[in-house]
Amino acid sequence: MINKLIDKIQKTKAPIVVGLDPMLAYVPEHVQQKAFAEYGETLSGAAEAIWQFNKEIVDKTYDLIPAVKPQIAMYEQFGVEGMQAYKKTVDYCKSKDLVVIGDVKRGDIGSTSAAYAVGHLGSVQVGSRVCTGFDEDFATVNPYLGSDGVKPFIEVCKEKKKGLFILVKTSNPSSGEFQDQLIDGKPLYELVGEKVAQWGEEHMGGSYSYIGAVVGATYPEQGKVLRKVMPKSFILVPGYGAQGGKGKDLVHFFNEDGLGAIVNSSRGIIAAYKQGTYAKYGPENFGDASRQAVEDMIADIQGALEAR
Amino acid sequence: MINKLIDKIQKTKAPIVVGLDPMLAYVPEHVQQKAFAEYGETLSGAAEAIWQFNKEIVDKTYDLIPAVKPQIAMYEQFGVEGMQAYKKTVDYCKSKDLVVIGDVKRGDIGSTSAAYAVGHLGSVQVGSRVCTGFDEDFATVNPYLGSDGVKPFIEVCKEKKKGLFILVKTSNPSSGEFQDQLIDGKPLYELVGEKVAQWGEEHMGGSYSYIGAVVGATYPEQGKVLRKVMPKSFILVPGYGAQGGKGKDLVHFFNEDGLGAIVNSSRGIIAAYKQGTYAKYGPENFGDASRQAVEDMIADIQGALEAR
Repeated sequence: MINKLIDKIQKTKAPIVVGLDPMLAYVPEHVQQKAFAEYGETLSGAAEAIWQFNKEIVDKTYDLIPAVKPQIAMYEQFGVEGMQAYKKTVDYCKSKDLVVIGDVKRGDIGSTSAAYAVGHLGSVQVGSRVCTGFDEDFATVNPYLGSDGVKPFIEVCKEKKKGLFILVKTSNPSSGEFQDQLIDGKPLYELVGEKVAQWGEEHMGGSYSYIGAVVGATYPEQGKVLRKVMPKSFILVPGYGAQGGKGKDLVHFFNEDGLGAIVNSSRGIIAAYKQGTYAKYGPENFGDASRQAVEDMIADIQGALEAR
Repeated sequence: MINKLIDKIQKTKAPIVVGLDPMLAYVPEHVQQKAFAEYGETLSGAAEAIWQFNKEIVDKTYDLIPAVKPQIAMYEQFGVEGMQAYKKTVDYCKSKDLVVIGDVKRGDIGSTSAAYAVGHLGSVQVGSRVCTGFDEDFATVNPYLGSDGVKPFIEVCKEKKKGLFILVKTSNPSSGEFQDQLIDGKPLYELVGEKVAQWGEEHMGGSYSYIGAVVGATYPEQGKVLRKVMPKSFILVPGYGAQGGKGKDLVHFFNEDGLGAIVNSSRGIIAAYKQGTYAKYGPENFGDASRQAVEDMIADIQGALEAR
């Protein structure tokens, strides 16, 4: 799957991923009202609203981008009905040949991580049949529990040719509270990065590993260091746009080959119509606003990469 | 909710929690076959099987115990249908007046943690109505992202009178890989424990805080230290039984008042009928085997507490 991701990045010339993180507040009134008219102001109504919202954004952007990253929390907030909208979104994006990165940040003791891995990336035996659950292409994983919490995910990836992005240095303001703590003079995130590099080298897709890392756009200096620590790992870079990252801050997340990173924007794309720059599209044409925001983001990042 | 948990522990004299972590392999053949006959060998069939399995165990044990801890991964492995079984299990346990600890180990950047908190412990606005998602009483939280990943959970707990158990030192063999790393001579888990204590003191239920911690039964020495670091936090102790912990190893997780810890057993209770000691019950009476295993576990822990 890492090879498919690279192939699509090269074809679209867009090392970006659209974060499908639909807060109800981002969904235009007319989409909400239509969903509520059919399903009521219920979890089902909310799930329908975010699904229709996602579908329009995917329809308007899928030809420009290699991948999407639905953040499962935004669906989980609507309970089981929200999870149905998540699954519908995953399946629809795959039908459009997009690579789907499930931003699930799971991680637990071995036997439990195995169940998460099966549910999100693998398949499960039910009697004599094999069934699949959410079936994303990549998943994000939290490393706090150490190797035996990560390895079951790697095993499933090996079997199913899928991939991981392991949290190394997250984009949020307090990420340093534990991640920056020095251990023998080296921050914890670097130690985690070294582990990712090690797992990565053991699980190569081609020139890149299918074990990648998450490093926030909001920490470009750390990104520069981690790029060298994990030379063969793709870095998923959240925090572009709404969280403050810009194209020029991100060049050091990429290798000399122009690959090695994929930059996520969520709000900046999916709620583009709410921003001054794209307000002219209006809520009726929110999908077109998102398309324009994708084009601008690609230009910003490509420009920065060419200028380096 | 911490007060309700304490009240129920005192009434049942059982500082234990039953982990409802239903692998399909634990579900007796006759329960599986009945579910498959109705729903096929599908995710729905698997979900029905684990739900019926849970229901029987709850029916046979609810009067002996204060709380249950469903591990959401075991449901998530069966996709959306599994999540439905999770929700049914949560609701059924609440109808039996059990305290429900959702073992979800979520944690993300602030806005995303807020969505998880809403989905698991809070409620969400849908148009003019307020809806609830999974609605557990407690949730487990991963601290790797630092304070701003944890605080949205605390906010929802404050509003809804619910509680958290934050991962400090997990029960798995490789938990030390990152958690034991020394920072100024102090292991990371202790640093996290200090944070839990600080959050805890700011959010007291009565004599205990509603911000608790997870510390594995498999690390009794660390448990002894962490008990002192977080004197007002309840410790959720996984790893009893199948993972190797015994009652006598666990006394230092408790305070002098006999409170402050709640010990989880999953496989050891729910798959008791598969163990030599309880084999006499047979798969037909798996619920009775679980009841006996609960009684034995309570006796083991109470005995150890009385002998200290």
